[in-house]
Amino acid sequence: MIKVVLIGQGNVASHLATAFGAATKIEIENVNSRHLENIPNADVTIIAVSDDAIASVSNQLKNRVGLIVHTSGTVPMDAIHQQRKGVFYPLQSFTKGAIVDFSNIPFCLEATNKSDLELLEVIAKSIGEKSYHITTDQRKKLHLAAVFVNNFTNHMYQIGKDICDEHQVPFEILHPLIEETAKKIGNISPKEAQTGPAKRNDVQTILSHLENLNLQQQKIYKLITQSIQEN
Amino acid sequence: MIKVVLIGQGNVASHLATAFGAATKIEIENVNSRHLENIPNADVTIIAVSDDAIASVSNQLKNRVGLIVHTSGTVPMDAIHQQRKGVFYPLQSFTKGAIVDFSNIPFCLEATNKSDLELLEVIAKSIGEKSYHITTDQRKKLHLAAVFVNNFTNHMYQIGKDICDEHQVPFEILHPLIEETAKKIGNISPKEAQTGPAKRNDVQTILSHLENLNLQQQKIYKLITQSIQEN
Repeated sequence: MIKVVLIGQGNVASHLATAFGAATKIEIENVNSRHLENIPNADVTIIAVSDDAIASVSNQLKNRVGLIVHTSGTVPMDAIHQQRKGVFYPLQSFTKGAIVDFSNIPFCLEATNKSDLELLEVIAKSIGEKSYHITTDQRKKLHLAAVFVNNFTNHMYQIGKDICDEHQVPFEILHPLIEETAKKIGNISPKEAQTGPAKRNDVQTILSHLENLNLQQQKIYKLITQSIQEN
Repeated sequence: MIKVVLIGQGNVASHLATAFGAATKIEIENVNSRHLENIPNADVTIIAVSDDAIASVSNQLKNRVGLIVHTSGTVPMDAIHQQRKGVFYPLQSFTKGAIVDFSNIPFCLEATNKSDLELLEVIAKSIGEKSYHITTDQRKKLHLAAVFVNNFTNHMYQIGKDICDEHQVPFEILHPLIEETAKKIGNISPKEAQTGPAKRNDVQTILSHLENLNLQQQKIYKLITQSIQEN
């Protein structure tokens, strides 16, 4: 049995608490970051609070034994001041209230020594399937890549919806295409998967598209078209 | 039994031929666009050839009876010269060789009269589930929206992969996030679904991200960040 204390009440903390609660190998206690006096000892303490609060929570735990980790995609491992430190970062966009299936979520793990890394692997496997050893610097790059594939992709969806709304076309018509586009890159690389007027350099279609966009949309259309053609 | 003649040998034609072949209500004959002499009569003739060739194939069929439709997302219905004309456009990105499940693909239908539109609906329902009455102008806008949600989104995936490759991070770590981002907008609008540093106006993270991108990626990052913030 691995004893885990989980600090925090936010999205990540509450989803992790639920998952650990169902894991047979884990004994979990979830505590509020405002009440850090007399919390039970644990093999691993997971600080699942907002990025800005990680260092200060770590400070308040200064004499605590065991491994101390945080769950952030961007904060360096060294924000934790204890000697045995690490990162336990589940890479997903968590929505409040939604049920999370951790079996499909990759865990990015980091620790200062091999045995702590192995301990984090056992904990990750207890609720999920895939884990990766990712350094602080790689995690930073992964987070940047995630901005493109998640936030910026979502903005492409929004522009698509704006165009549909403006012309009374139900946006739901595009849902299957959106899902297929996402699934496809599980099998082939995005570069191989690319199609469309930019890729074909279909100048007539590109010009006709530009005529139907507002100024901001035109700027985005031109820049991404150019970027596709230069790649 | 509805008799359908399907003209063309490309991706869309071959996927449609397979699907109609399995539909109990449809009697299908698939013919090559180079051999349009003596093709059998049909209730509906589907011209599934490249956009540029639609008008010329329609010309070659000039005395043909029945409803004549094309399958293009961008060509106007009027590219067909027969009196009974229409559009039968399955909105999806078809990949050669891959199996296509039409039950999940929306059909965008257009015709000059109501009974022909109803005929196209019956044919669409024989292989799929959802169909929409979409005018030529709406179809054009839908195709433009599809460039954003498919081609441009795919380019966001490519930039994400480039960043991962450069730093020896496996791109597959991002697959579950990519799929989740796509699924999410089935339940909430892209605007509600937006998260990340642009949305939060987290200037420090934005600046640190920009430092880690090449010039072209910086341009895209800045423009989309600005667009998210103005929306």
